Amino acid sequence: MTKRRAIYAGSFDPLTNGHVDILERGADLFDELILAVANNRNKKPTFSAAERVALSKASLEHLKNVSVCSFEGLLIDFAREQGVKVLLRGLRAVSDFEYEFQLATMNRNLAKAEVETMFLMTGETHFYLSSRLVREVASWGGDISSMVPKPVFEALVAKFEDKYKV
Amino acid sequence: MTKRRAIYAGSFDPLTNGHVDILERGADLFDELILAVANNRNKKPTFSAAERVALSKASLEHLKNVSVCSFEGLLIDFAREQGVKVLLRGLRAVSDFEYEFQLATMNRNLAKAEVETMFLMTGETHFYLSSRLVREVASWGGDISSMVPKPVFEALVAKFEDKYKV
Amino acid sequence: MTKRRAIYAGSFDPLTNGHVDILERGADLFDELILAVANNRNKKPTFSAAERVALSKASLEHLKNVSVCSFEGLLIDFAREQGVKVLLRGLRAVSDFEYEFQLATMNRNLAKAEVETMFLMTGETHFYLSSRLVREVASWGGDISSMVPKPVFEALVAKFEDKYKV
Amino acid sequence: MTKRRAIYAGSFDPLTNGHVDILERGADLFDELILAVANNRNKKPTFSAAERVALSKASLEHLKNVSVCSFEGLLIDFAREQGVKVLLRGLRAVSDFEYEFQLATMNRNLAKAEVETMFLMTGETHFYLSSRLVREVASWGGDISSMVPKPVFEALVAKFEDKYKV
Amino acid sequence: MTKRRAIYAGSFDPLTNGHVDILERGADLFDELILAVANNRNKKPTFSAAERVALSKASLEHLKNVSVCSFEGLLIDFAREQGVKVLLRGLRAVSDFEYEFQLATMNRNLAKAEVETMFLMTGETHFYLSSRLVREVASWGGDISSMVPKPVFEALVAKFEDKYKV
Amino acid sequence: MTKRRAIYAGSFDPLTNGHVDILERGADLFDELILAVANNRNKKPTFSAAERVALSKASLEHLKNVSVCSFEGLLIDFAREQGVKVLLRGLRAVSDFEYEFQLATMNRNLAKAEVETMFLMTGETHFYLSSRLVREVASWGGDISSMVPKPVFEALVAKFEDKYKV
Repeated sequence: MTKRRAIYAGSFDPLTNGHVDILERGADLFDELILAVANNRNKKPTFSAAERVALSKASLEHLKNVSVCSFEGLLIDFAREQGVKVLLRGLRAVSDFEYEFQLATMNRNLAKAEVETMFLMTGETHFYLSSRLVREVASWGGDISSMVPKPVFEALVAKFEDKYKV
Repeated sequence: MTKRRAIYAGSFDPLTNGHVDILERGADLFDELILAVANNRNKKPTFSAAERVALSKASLEHLKNVSVCSFEGLLIDFAREQGVKVLLRGLRAVSDFEYEFQLATMNRNLAKAEVETMFLMTGETHFYLSSRLVREVASWGGDISSMVPKPVFEALVAKFEDKYKV
Repeated sequence: MTKRRAIYAGSFDPLTNGHVDILERGADLFDELILAVANNRNKKPTFSAAERVALSKASLEHLKNVSVCSFEGLLIDFAREQGVKVLLRGLRAVSDFEYEFQLATMNRNLAKAEVETMFLMTGETHFYLSSRLVREVASWGGDISSMVPKPVFEALVAKFEDKYKV
Repeated sequence: MTKRRAIYAGSFDPLTNGHVDILERGADLFDELILAVANNRNKKPTFSAAERVALSKASLEHLKNVSVCSFEGLLIDFAREQGVKVLLRGLRAVSDFEYEFQLATMNRNLAKAEVETMFLMTGETHFYLSSRLVREVASWGGDISSMVPKPVFEALVAKFEDKYKV
Repeated sequence: MTKRRAIYAGSFDPLTNGHVDILERGADLFDELILAVANNRNKKPTFSAAERVALSKASLEHLKNVSVCSFEGLLIDFAREQGVKVLLRGLRAVSDFEYEFQLATMNRNLAKAEVETMFLMTGETHFYLSSRLVREVASWGGDISSMVPKPVFEALVAKFEDKYKV
Repeated sequence: MTKRRAIYAGSFDPLTNGHVDILERGADLFDELILAVANNRNKKPTFSAAERVALSKASLEHLKNVSVCSFEGLLIDFAREQGVKVLLRGLRAVSDFEYEFQLATMNRNLAKAEVETMFLMTGETHFYLSSRLVREVASWGGDISSMVPKPVFEALVAKFEDKYKV
């Protein structure tokens, strides 16, 4: 039996407890799980790719078979480079579903069916979390301490501290 | 019995007849209804927050228990300041529904369940209206007189009059 | 100010903790809330209308402004008889949403806009609960003790006890 | 490393090429895959549980690590009996998605998070296939030879041959 | 140029004003439009196929290029018999959409792309109407006079008159 | 009988094989089909309107009754100018559906019901294609040769050739 390895890719700007839930469950289902932070040069993220990698590492120390890195370009190319044939994704809502369906089908076509996408449903207490919503709430000083891992919480507070001071 | 007060918040850029429909029905269901115009400094609206407040006031004179104001920051903080525990929202379509579900759940978590979100379904003759679509049609000189209150119609014509002149 | 009264109608075959969540929140939003058990002679429920009324009463003793009764015929006629102009509904998912949208619009047309339907989103820890799923799981001896009020749990165990004995 | 085993459960009344697609892809992702035919005594299937098991076996001979059996009762209990912690499901459409989300969440609660549900998106050339639609088309003599495995095709023709003769 | 002919098929149990809306608009878009009443022997309709044909004819006298008939079996076979290559369908909601997508794709596969399905969106004042909902409301004596053509209204009143008498 | 003419409008930035599928099927259903490239001065497309017209012409030479042009402003005004009363649209997914429903209803209101929107479902092998996704994949050097017509493929390669060189 070969090792079962999977990639869990995304922007993670920032990592939320919803992502952590998928990672914890995925870590049980695969021998190795790679959190791959997308470094898209055309977007202006709140945290740089390096910061997002560092925050994710700090938040996932309890998961021994999860590693963190960043990648650029097509996910499917990154998967081939890593010799990984499974992409793990979380599904949260119907709108997610449709986009994910298109993306998974696109990726199967690009990868000539050599790479599969597997999905887990987001835990029911996290389905309302999105990085965008968390960023927005944090920017207005809302209490997001129960929605993100501790290192991410501290980084968000530091990022928006001018608002907190006012 | 204490007064039943609710907040109906949004961008209202501009107020459409769909919003007015929700406000007229909401005015029957609550003792006081506050239309709260979101003043988001990161966005570039077609009408300024002050203009949107003025246009909304001019359009809602017939609703005696509806007041209009603007707010900045988290809606949940504004609701607490006002001592209001009900947020009123209109639902128009499935895509609305999912976003609203996430938002309502986020707000219940932020407010420790002290603030509730209640929904009305948009009237069937207004479900196709959105501020964005109205703006777009108006910018090309389309006739939106049946889609917005009269003061908003006049403001849109003035805003896009260069196009009308051409 | 007149009393704010609302009807929360359904089959409640049986009442689940998802319904109780809506009722507890609704009891805070209205002066009086009537749980109305639909007695549809064309359907064969697991519990009779009388049983469903009794189980609901036993489960809702902590909510002083909630009363329980059954009705037959159009909900809109029952609302008129009771002099109530607000129907309260829980929304759980997109498929709910569409049916509810049709029903609310139908009811507004039937009631000539005299009766409104207001919606609450089901709490995130209950959205997966449906009476049908609970019945099915209970019929196979699955542990549904955390999904329904205690009186309902006991009634379900009694109803399906042959299975439990095997 | 322990063996990765998963259960792919359903009615399979009958098995379609959409199911076969999921099974072929699943057979690559797990060491062992169990096709579990639900034997629900309250329903009247077109093919008996024994027939469905036999047809599935005949259709899946090329998949060496797939076994076929039937089960009764809660899937979660069957999974525990088999010592399997992964349920595999295919997702085809938004309506699937919502039901599957509820079911997966229900099962996680019943199984105290010991059993996970993983999803694959149905291949784009099979998404329109459902057992119900295939049965209906076959019952009217429509050509379903490209939609089901050969043994299933022959069984459907035999089942509905009176219609074919007319 | 050959004549443009289309089939608008369904159960029409009974025809509603939503169907009439689609038929009136379709009559403008095609040279001939055939309303085809599905006669499914496995179902127990409220009105027999013959009654549904008669009611539809009586309701559509103002549409000179619309004819009414019934059919049994696969719609695609009926279309071929009639030499018609376009199926017209109304879309009302997301749940419609998914089923219609599956059905249209199934039909294209069965017909080897010789038959196309074209869709119109239901008029916004009719989207909440369904034959099922109309039947249910009529059975309880609700006023459905604005929801169905006059001949259908009279037939429904006659069908359910015992209830009206009570 | 007058000629049946329809407009198929969009951004086509760029034309994909999904669009070509709709055009090929539409060319069978109408006497004349006009592909109308929206020239929206507020957006920054990857290809200019003139380029998109030229690429579309080069890709559609096999369809004798399809012409290509660009337009600015409201589609409904362009349709009137052309004396065309049918807009053809492709439907791909639920999220499409809702937006299209709003747009079609808006256009019927703007056009006082003189212009109809008809829909075809995207072929099942193309539903995952969108111009945006194709552009994104091409920008990273992914192989999109099976997703777009040959002239578009070559133009995309030229546009992003710096990436290909690296």
